[in-house]
Formats: sequence, structure tokens, C-alpha cells
Amino acid sequence: MATPRFTTVYRVQGDAASIEARAQAIAVEQSVEMPVTAIAEPEIVTDIVGRVEAIEDRGGGLFDVRIGLALSTTGLEAAQFLNMVFGNASLYEDVVLQDVEIPTELATAFGGPRHGIGGLRQRVGAVGRAFTCSAIKPQGVPPARLAELAGRFARGGIDFVKDDHGLADQRYSPFADRVAACADAVDRAAQATGHATRYVPSLSGDLDRMRRQIDAARAAGIDTVLIAPMLAGWATFQTLARTFPDIAFIAHPTMGGAARIAPELLVGKLFRLLGADAVIFPNHGGRFGYTPETCRALAGQARAHWDGVRPSVPVPAGGMTLDRVPEMLDFYGPDAMLLIGGSLLAARERLTEETAAFTRAVAQHSYR
Amino acid sequence: MATPRFTTVYRVQGDAASIEARAQAIAVEQSVEMPVTAIAEPEIVTDIVGRVEAIEDRGGGLFDVRIGLALSTTGLEAAQFLNMVFGNASLYEDVVLQDVEIPTELATAFGGPRHGIGGLRQRVGAVGRAFTCSAIKPQGVPPARLAELAGRFARGGIDFVKDDHGLADQRYSPFADRVAACADAVDRAAQATGHATRYVPSLSGDLDRMRRQIDAARAAGIDTVLIAPMLAGWATFQTLARTFPDIAFIAHPTMGGAARIAPELLVGKLFRLLGADAVIFPNHGGRFGYTPETCRALAGQARAHWDGVRPSVPVPAGGMTLDRVPEMLDFYGPDAMLLIGGSLLAARERLTEETAAFTRAVAQHSYR
Repeated sequence: MATPRFTTVYRVQGDAASIEARAQAIAVEQSVEMPVTAIAEPEIVTDIVGRVEAIEDRGGGLFDVRIGLALSTTGLEAAQFLNMVFGNASLYEDVVLQDVEIPTELATAFGGPRHGIGGLRQRVGAVGRAFTCSAIKPQGVPPARLAELAGRFARGGIDFVKDDHGLADQRYSPFADRVAACADAVDRAAQATGHATRYVPSLSGDLDRMRRQIDAARAAGIDTVLIAPMLAGWATFQTLARTFPDIAFIAHPTMGGAARIAPELLVGKLFRLLGADAVIFPNHGGRFGYTPETCRALAGQARAHWDGVRPSVPVPAGGMTLDRVPEMLDFYGPDAMLLIGGSLLAARERLTEETAAFTRAVAQHSYR
Repeated sequence: MATPRFTTVYRVQGDAASIEARAQAIAVEQSVEMPVTAIAEPEIVTDIVGRVEAIEDRGGGLFDVRIGLALSTTGLEAAQFLNMVFGNASLYEDVVLQDVEIPTELATAFGGPRHGIGGLRQRVGAVGRAFTCSAIKPQGVPPARLAELAGRFARGGIDFVKDDHGLADQRYSPFADRVAACADAVDRAAQATGHATRYVPSLSGDLDRMRRQIDAARAAGIDTVLIAPMLAGWATFQTLARTFPDIAFIAHPTMGGAARIAPELLVGKLFRLLGADAVIFPNHGGRFGYTPETCRALAGQARAHWDGVRPSVPVPAGGMTLDRVPEMLDFYGPDAMLLIGGSLLAARERLTEETAAFTRAVAQHSYR
């Protein structure tokens, strides 16, 4: 029986004369990383060496190279999977990892979102509308101040209040103190409003510390956390998703260095594969440079039908404002979460009212 | 007292008219990530918000932006440090992280190499010459075959035989079986040659698994391992370096995506800071695109005098061949390790003899 393979797609800058050799070099680099002629065992050449399946000229000096990699080389382990699909090739300046076609074995091994769009809807009772989200910041203020902000967001009826991704375990706001204070503030607000707002703390440190953070968060009644897969390491994320199936994970794109891995692949598809129930990404027209096409593709990858893998909520963010809500809802539809941070915080003492206007705008929107 | 800051340098594509605003935007993104006008607390603006210290026009539409970040935002934790110096900015396509000036507090917290050039020289008895290194591959062959290769390298008198970075914990070559077999083969060869060759297994998986792997390796008499910081996660590496001070770590650049972080910074300086005793990187003129200037700068960063931080061995690699040895030795000098993999393996049954020629060339070289 032939060795099971899966297909990776690299977008390579090159020319027609040399692209075939370049494609072959990538196939070797991402598998055996040695001259094929130096391999003594014929079964390694047959079963392990990457195989160029197709080369498509995309025009403008760009080629899509499709390579079949042996599934066995990944060991069904997340960091090694990343190592095999892009590790050394990430050092080639002319190569972008464009797509990975995930076989069932990998999808089963990684598991994808444990809750996904449907599970998150149940958590916060969001039916037939987009989710709302904001962030507490700036870092540097003490837990009590962050908790006060979280409470005011919750009183505005928001679905998720997340830690700013810069909040870790710094002296001015230790994780344990912050989580206790914010969970309590959000709980009290939720009881007042009747809306099941979730506080979403940000994980940091190594696996041991993240496990302790989730234990502490769970003890405070929290069921949703923020993780940055490119900082934590993919193996860490895989282990956490497997260890804590009751916890929902929202993925943050920090260190995503999107220029070298197609954003729709990295954030939309692969973070989902690892178990992100929602994926944050920089919306077009904000502080970052993603195009509307990239954003549409990313949201599409997060929600696409995928047998056995739950859909993940796309969370456009990054400099969003209240006046963009209708346009964003029409662009993404109701299976999305709008994340507005700094612009709500800029309302200062009117934070609760601005948040209420935000949640109202989302609740009352008529989708085109 | 003013808040302690450290300086990060970003190389930004832009124009003179807008660079000041762009620099300010990066300073905010890498600290509070919200409109500064929305910050109620004056001490946050003073002590936490990133501060543009200087902007230097490098010509050709490139500017070096120097930003002072508050040390407290890093929490002295490795992954959070990376988050603060480049996290969200990695999503800007026009920004490269060019340099980070490491204050003593960070150097002490991370610790740098526990052994460094001097410690590795002691391990293998390499005095006054460059180190030699090769790799066992291809993945896919069973442990016995890899062990046979490792033994033949060792019989050629090589200093370090490392796992190919694609070797993880796959079914065809489980870590435990591979390490036991290779350690034994190298031990027996070392006894025959009298040269203290080290076998260097590659770590994979999450922190728990890596700890078990190091324990197993140590039980087999191994004192040097290979780690890929960009796959493992920086917090994982920090924890391992701290937990196992007797183990030397060789850092592999896979997933280094060097185009967005200056290679000399990422591999030469930051991997060293985290505790790499030796750093592997693609040499100029090999399979990857680094220039001689980048390679010289990288080796320089790895070995530069740094109070309280040991030097790290630069390990040029990636498609190197025997005939390049003299040129490489003249380029890097004796405080370097030459890593030749595939080209030695291509000698097949003459592997030991080719390896002996390699180690002889390094031992007998007259440095210019």
C-alpha cells in the first residue's frame, strides 16, 4: 500500500526555467533534507521523500507548488507538523506557505474546536446574531482598575471581555489577582444584566504555568481563555486543548508574521485545526494591512464545512470602531464576533453606554 | 525614578513625511495597544507606553526606528518578551525587527548559554580549532540504521552527531529507541577512537515530553540536545535551560522565518540569550539565501563579548561540502562548529573515511 500523504501548497517566486528544480528542492527540504542520491534505502525514496504533485503558474513570476508529504513524518504531533510543512522552508525568502490539505487522520489527532461557533453561542446565549467582544487595557494598571473596566463592559451587555494580549503575569497585574478580580466584577455585572458575559483571561508562560492558570480560571468559574499559538508553541496548544475539553480557546495572532504563511491558512484553518473556538485577526481598514479578500478568505476558512471539525468563530479586530459595525456585520454575517477595544475605552466614563450602543447595534442589525 | 526601559530597533519601509506617525504607532502597538488619549492614568503614559527614541533614515525608503519599551511589560518571561518586542508588529508587512538591546535584568533572567563555547570545548576536547558536526538522516529509517550511521560518523572522529531536525517521535523511529541505539553506537565508537564524540538528540513535543526526553537522554549518558526555539516556544526553552543546567542546548533555526526578524538578531543574539550553547544557521552559498554579511553578523552576535552571558558557538550549515571547509574556517575562525550532513552521507560506505577527512581538515587548518 502506498504511504498516506497530504498536500502542502507553496507559493514560490521564480521563473519557468527553474521552478521545477526549485519545487523538487522544497520537497526534499521538507522531508529528508539530504541529497536523494545519498539515500541507500529505496523505500525511503518511495515513502518518505516529498513528492512534487503539480506546479501551477499563477502569473507575475509566482508559482503554486503542490507537494505531497508523508503523513508519517508529522508523528501526528502539532509542532512537528509545523516543522514538516514549513520549518526550514520558512527560511527561504521567496516561499510562502499557501495551503495545507488536512487529511482525516490529522484532523482527528488535533481535534479542532471543542466547542466552536455553536458551543460559544450556547455559552453567552447569542442566537441569530454576531458575537460582541472587547478587551481590557492598558497594561500597567492594577487588577482593580482592569476589573472595573471589565465590569463596565459587562454592564453594557457584551458577550466576551478579554484580556489585552499584552497582559501576562507582570508584577503590576499578576494573573491570579487579575483573574479573581475580573471574574468577580463580570459575574456581578452579569447577574445585574441577566446576560451571561464571559471574562476571557490571557494565558502566558510555559505549559506548567498555563495549566495552573487554567485551573485557577476554572476555579473562578471561567470557561473561555485566550491563547497565542505562535508564542505558546503548537505542542503546548495541542496539549491544553486535549487536557481541558471543557475550556473554549480564543486564538490571538500575535507573532503570526503573516507575510510568510498565508493568513487565511495560519489563522483561519490551522489555528482552528489546533482547537481554537474563535480566531482573532486584524480586520481590513484597521491598524494592519490585511486586504478585504484576505479577511473574507480567512473567515471562510474558519467556518468552512469540515467533516468532524467544528467551525471556529472569526473575530475581526484591530482598530475597529462603532461606526463600522453595520458594514462589518454585512461583510462577515452573524457567524462572527466583533471585537472593539480601544475605541470603546476611549469613551472613558461613558464606557458602559458606548458598549450598550455596540451590543444594540449588533443585536438589531438587519443582515443584507 | 524613571521606569527601566530597553531599546528595540525596527526597520520600517516608509517615507519621511509619515515615518514619525508610523514610529509612534509601533510604539503604541508594542505596549498598550490602545489610543493613548483613551488612557486615564498619567503614570501609564509615562511608564508603560512605548517611547520613540530616535528615527534614522537608512536611505532607499528604509528607516530604523528605535523604541524604548518598559522592561516591566515583559514580566521577565521569554514568550512575553517576544510578544512585547515583535508580537503584533510581526503582522505589519513593512516592519522587520532589527535589534533588541538587552538590559542586564533580562540577561540575568534568561541566563544565556550555561556552557557556551568554552563548555563545549571541554566536552569534546576541542582545543584551538573549530568544532565538527554532522547529522543522521534520512527520517524514515529505523533506529538501528540511524545508530549505524552515528557510529560511523563517530569512528571518523567527529565532535557532534546530531539528529536531523525532522526526527521527532515518529513511529518509524521513536525517540526512546533511537536515543538508546545511537548513544550506544557512539559510545562504542568513542571508546575505539578515544575521541569524546557527542550524540545530540532532537527534542520534540510539549514541555512534559521534552522533559521526559531529556531525562531519558541523560540516563543514556547524553549531555547535549537539539532544540528548535520557534517550534518549542520560547517559554518552553527558557524552562528547559533553567531545569537542566548540566545539559548543553544546540538551537535549530527551523520556522525562523528570518525575513521578518533579522537573522543575526533572532539566531545570533536571542537564541543565545535564551540559553543556546550553539546556534545552527544556513551558511551563505548553501541551500538558503543568507548573505556573507548576514552570516558574519550572526556569528558576531553569537560570540560578541557580553557581560555575564557566555558566548555561543556559531554553526554554519545547510548544504555544506568538504571542499568548502578551508574557506569556512577562514571566514568563521576556530570559535565555530562546521556542520556537514548530506554531503558526508552521500559517501555511503565511505562515510567514516569522509568524516575522518572532514575532521582532519578542521584539525590541520592554518587560519589566515
